[in-house]
Amino acid sequence: MSTPIRIGIIGYGNLGRGVELAIAQNSDMTLVGVFSRRDPASVPSKANVYAIDEILTFKDRIDVMILCGGSATDLPEQGPSFARHFNTVDSYDTHAKIPEYFSRVDAEAVAGGNVSVISTGWDPGLFSLNRLLGQTILPEGTEYTFWGKGVSQGHSDAIRRVPGVKSGVQYTVPAESALARVRAGESPTLTTREKHKRDCFVVAEENANQNAIRDAIVNMPNYFADYDTTVTFISVEELNRDHAAMPHGGYVLRSGKTGESSAQLMEFSIKLGSNPEFTASVLVAYARAAYKYAQEGFVGAKTVLDIPFAYLSPKSGAELRKELL
Amino acid sequence: MSTPIRIGIIGYGNLGRGVELAIAQNSDMTLVGVFSRRDPASVPSKANVYAIDEILTFKDRIDVMILCGGSATDLPEQGPSFARHFNTVDSYDTHAKIPEYFSRVDAEAVAGGNVSVISTGWDPGLFSLNRLLGQTILPEGTEYTFWGKGVSQGHSDAIRRVPGVKSGVQYTVPAESALARVRAGESPTLTTREKHKRDCFVVAEENANQNAIRDAIVNMPNYFADYDTTVTFISVEELNRDHAAMPHGGYVLRSGKTGESSAQLMEFSIKLGSNPEFTASVLVAYARAAYKYAQEGFVGAKTVLDIPFAYLSPKSGAELRKELL
Repeated sequence: MSTPIRIGIIGYGNLGRGVELAIAQNSDMTLVGVFSRRDPASVPSKANVYAIDEILTFKDRIDVMILCGGSATDLPEQGPSFARHFNTVDSYDTHAKIPEYFSRVDAEAVAGGNVSVISTGWDPGLFSLNRLLGQTILPEGTEYTFWGKGVSQGHSDAIRRVPGVKSGVQYTVPAESALARVRAGESPTLTTREKHKRDCFVVAEENANQNAIRDAIVNMPNYFADYDTTVTFISVEELNRDHAAMPHGGYVLRSGKTGESSAQLMEFSIKLGSNPEFTASVLVAYARAAYKYAQEGFVGAKTVLDIPFAYLSPKSGAELRKELL
Repeated sequence: MSTPIRIGIIGYGNLGRGVELAIAQNSDMTLVGVFSRRDPASVPSKANVYAIDEILTFKDRIDVMILCGGSATDLPEQGPSFARHFNTVDSYDTHAKIPEYFSRVDAEAVAGGNVSVISTGWDPGLFSLNRLLGQTILPEGTEYTFWGKGVSQGHSDAIRRVPGVKSGVQYTVPAESALARVRAGESPTLTTREKHKRDCFVVAEENANQNAIRDAIVNMPNYFADYDTTVTFISVEELNRDHAAMPHGGYVLRSGKTGESSAQLMEFSIKLGSNPEFTASVLVAYARAAYKYAQEGFVGAKTVLDIPFAYLSPKSGAELRKELL
């Protein structure tokens, strides 16, 4: 390893903090600074923290910017605008809008002579890779994705909007029975209800009607009505003690046939103690790929589907062939 | 899809037959012919079969040759020699010699202006990809590979060499207890005996001493002595009825930590009804990648580690981004 890859982080929530920790595990990288809209003095990072207004003065001091903002409002604006000035990596995950986002980031990256890797992480990201691998190797087959067990932010927010609810958290749980049927090669057609269940842990306001809360949750359209949902009332102490971690996970399966009727199954799964730290680790690996593409003179946007795994590694092609094949 | 990709198959054993079947599942490909050292009339393929001596007359009629010979004697000779004249894909799997094989194939492919993808399949191949993904995303972690349940050709051959044995088959079986410990995040150090067991089904010669056969097998150095091995004596009818299929499978796991101490687990597994048909399906997907690289003007050797998954698909980048991210 010669000069380390110089990384910048934009945004310091759970994901930005995870990226800071992941960089510390990769000896070929160094964290130059964290850029925040908050007062730098208030950002609890051990790295140098700068106001985001200063960011353009770092153009020649940072190789790759890792964008750690959210997909709802931060990235649609930041992705294209920073791609104009820096090589970037992000985890933009609004599935339906990814083609449009790709085009906008690509145009700015090309104009600025930079490389941008968009929509990394695990879904989109590693799960997309495994869906693609499955459908190309087993073209006659069926694909299944199960999410969890893990916290769904959107569903937790929905719980908290129910009258009488003080706080709460929702876990998406894949149905073991459905997983077992897929693994057995049944290629079942699964309903929404058969694939996942939803477990809610709710802190109710004092004197709230728990039955009314439960009814409001389990019958909520789009979020819970199509699922088997359990609601467990807990104290605020229990919530803080037992539900502060951010676990997640999931499964991508491809069940197919080859030849006359040989059953073939491919399965990829992850079980995450910390969802944001894992997503951050994926971002950091793809930052290395962005750096390599930039070194080669490539410009424009890429996704995980366009990038060979060798680009994620600090090792040479010869080392990888010797150690991994 | 415009003109289909024109494929040739060299060698018509189980793998070549699997490739023929896999091509039929991919509408953007057409099988031009099978090339064999045997008398073409004796090769049981529905495709056109040609003597291998005629192969050079096909230089302008075949886009990618899929090499279906064995790694012991066929590929070390055929890989480099056909790379000189055709784009090629193979499943060369003598792990220790892959770097040397890569160099020899690369030199011939470059000299001939062709693309060669070497060492595809599942191990090396998909398992190598997952090892690389694991170590780049979770640099602080431990990697585990388990093989099976499946037939090991080498161990089955070893059984058949034991005096008094008429025929037999050996299954490598991953130990569920070891898998469970890895999945639980224990990061155990596992002995050979703890990782796999070996189940042998043996047809003995009439009047052979079964106890002597069992002893000879379970104590055989390198092959069985380091494992818990079971030997079950069966009839030749049972062997043909119950053990003719070629199932296989396996697991690649990466167990790591991020941040302070968050446990993270990645797991890839396959469960194959037919090992040769699955390997063939991987070869065919990488034949598409070889074709795309050739269209782009690239020459030389590549491995699965160098190839983005998008190259395995007949779909465009825009389609893949829309459907898979």
